[in-house]
Amino acid sequence: MDFFKVVSIEEAREKLINNFKDYKLPIEEVDILDSLNRVLAEDIISNINVPEFNRSTVDGYAIKSSDSHGANESMPSFLNIVGEVKMGENTNIKIKSGEAVYVPTGGMIPEGADSVIMIENAERLDENTIAVYKAISPGENLIFKGDDIKKGELVLEKGKRVTSQDIGALAAIGISKVKVYRRPKFYVISTGDEIIDIDEELEIGKIRDINGYSLSALIKKIGGEVVDKVIVKDDFDLLKEEMEKALSLSDIVLISGGSSVGARDYTYDLINSFDDIGVFVHGVSIKPGKPTLIGRANGKAVFGLPGHPVSAIIVFKVFVEHFIKELIDYKEEIRKTKAIMDFNVHSSPGKETYQMVTLEERDGKLYATPIFGKSGMITLLSKSNGYIVIKSHEEGVTKGEEREVFFL
Amino acid sequence: MDFFKVVSIEEAREKLINNFKDYKLPIEEVDILDSLNRVLAEDIISNINVPEFNRSTVDGYAIKSSDSHGANESMPSFLNIVGEVKMGENTNIKIKSGEAVYVPTGGMIPEGADSVIMIENAERLDENTIAVYKAISPGENLIFKGDDIKKGELVLEKGKRVTSQDIGALAAIGISKVKVYRRPKFYVISTGDEIIDIDEELEIGKIRDINGYSLSALIKKIGGEVVDKVIVKDDFDLLKEEMEKALSLSDIVLISGGSSVGARDYTYDLINSFDDIGVFVHGVSIKPGKPTLIGRANGKAVFGLPGHPVSAIIVFKVFVEHFIKELIDYKEEIRKTKAIMDFNVHSSPGKETYQMVTLEERDGKLYATPIFGKSGMITLLSKSNGYIVIKSHEEGVTKGEEREVFFL
Repeated sequence: MDFFKVVSIEEAREKLINNFKDYKLPIEEVDILDSLNRVLAEDIISNINVPEFNRSTVDGYAIKSSDSHGANESMPSFLNIVGEVKMGENTNIKIKSGEAVYVPTGGMIPEGADSVIMIENAERLDENTIAVYKAISPGENLIFKGDDIKKGELVLEKGKRVTSQDIGALAAIGISKVKVYRRPKFYVISTGDEIIDIDEELEIGKIRDINGYSLSALIKKIGGEVVDKVIVKDDFDLLKEEMEKALSLSDIVLISGGSSVGARDYTYDLINSFDDIGVFVHGVSIKPGKPTLIGRANGKAVFGLPGHPVSAIIVFKVFVEHFIKELIDYKEEIRKTKAIMDFNVHSSPGKETYQMVTLEERDGKLYATPIFGKSGMITLLSKSNGYIVIKSHEEGVTKGEEREVFFL
Repeated sequence: MDFFKVVSIEEAREKLINNFKDYKLPIEEVDILDSLNRVLAEDIISNINVPEFNRSTVDGYAIKSSDSHGANESMPSFLNIVGEVKMGENTNIKIKSGEAVYVPTGGMIPEGADSVIMIENAERLDENTIAVYKAISPGENLIFKGDDIKKGELVLEKGKRVTSQDIGALAAIGISKVKVYRRPKFYVISTGDEIIDIDEELEIGKIRDINGYSLSALIKKIGGEVVDKVIVKDDFDLLKEEMEKALSLSDIVLISGGSSVGARDYTYDLINSFDDIGVFVHGVSIKPGKPTLIGRANGKAVFGLPGHPVSAIIVFKVFVEHFIKELIDYKEEIRKTKAIMDFNVHSSPGKETYQMVTLEERDGKLYATPIFGKSGMITLLSKSNGYIVIKSHEEGVTKGEEREVFFL
């Protein structure tokens, strides 16, 4: 085996990106309701104005605002009603000074009118006359054509994750389908002679596959697809066979486990056994996650993740998620908060440390309690809802200190 | 129509809960990988210890720690190798003082051993002997049986939304299926003579259905199912017909639109036209969202949401989401942050004001910019990623003030 060359997180990410410069996920078109949480592969530009017409925001009378000037409760203006606009219908009425037209909320404002007097501020005296009891300004109680979205305007940017509000915006401009990146396809391999699947009888000495499940769930959470999830014994030939299949069916292969030195060697040799670059990251100065392997085989990205469940999740977030974001020009969103540390945490200088925490609110303040555990500590992990990052030049964090917590 | 009796948010929520005391969502069993983001309908208790045996966390030799006492680089302890534990296998070896057994990471610790000396700190002198160069303490480099999860321990609580880490925990204890609440079924009705669907030709005077889409997306986001999404003209008989169908097929009916006074009357009369409690909330002191209607018809919850897209989203979050959480004993999670207000916002005293904001990070600090808009302003809405709440006794927020921002 090559010498274990530990690199920084930044170096590892750089190598990862450089080795997959030309790898792009295909683009597909989906109905907007199916685009929730997908990432846009196109800029969305509006072909229309929203609204397409000057639109009333109240029930009232469309008027020239100048006709209301000076009007008040004791000295109203009197205007002639020259028509009524029906909801959802076009109108050809043109308003002149001294005239008013009834318009419902959402109705079209007739030409010549620049404002709407609310029914509460007007009184219908007879079929043809209203009294206006309030002075209003141009633009009052209406939205002008294009006020909301202008024709030609960039509404949503390529790389944006589609939210429910975005789907509303797409509907507003009449776009029913959008181009999004195809979900990245993953193949998840758990290795180890001691690993058994969830429904297998638990013999002494064996443990259940945790990573296969938590990684598959993480993949689904970030919008990926799990092509398959398998357990393979520490046998090079079996691993090679599974890997061939994995590389042909997926975009990204995750191999987890191999916590013993022998198993790590297998994964390393396995990635290098294909006719490609092979392993290009072999050890990262991250805690937990040091023995991480990253390589390229048959043109696909392969990640060798630690067997430890917490480490596997951290390495997934730091490298796999990062890689996907780069593949699809994904714009990062702010999903973090600040919290007061409720404990001292010591870190290893020279390593970037990721520490899982549980957030708790007391007296309107957020506190973060670090979650420690010798190894698995899966119960505690399931209680954590975020993590803090301690940079490699720091020595740890101090109780009472305020730090950023990233949501899991 | 009854007098418009505006109630506070708390009063409205209380009426809502009281009128649906006995309404529960059915429970269904799903595979754990399909349980991501679903809400548990049962407490999960472990039937096993994790690990089921004392387990090594390193590659090394299992020993009695007392045998290493006093050992150092210049004065090692010498121990007899009495066997080797194979990965994933049971072992019957019992260690006595002066003995050592090779154990790989994850391997079972033989009886009698209380610690593991790492291979880095030991040297194999011949087939039967090692030199131990370091003193270790009991429990070092191993996890004891049940250290991670104890048999009988409560692992996940009823009402918890299942995360990817939780799925890992379920796998660890051999649980492949869990009971979760069935997704709440929604029927989404947009009303208004001016509303047309996304693929219809846009005539002047009409506008596209935004709420049908953004509400459907919000429903999917919170784990609900949209049975159907329809547009109905402002015609009582058509609405009544659609409503009959909606009530028979779904748990919750959302009627949005009806921004004009006439349309609001329709929705009100519609909800009251069934043989049940009818409308029990008619106006809430919330901004935006005052004209909200909440009622019960044929035993189901019906929400009359404002036609304005931002208002509809706010009312959905404040009442519909709250209602679902109550239905399924959902434990609220912390999904908020603090940010510095980048603007002054004036609010209406006596009303709880919900103000959409965009978060932005500058020099390591989070700033929130309120999003204003006369009406729809759907482009701006799609730029917002959270909201602030201004309580009814407050007059607004001041630029520079730090406040809580809830993620959308």
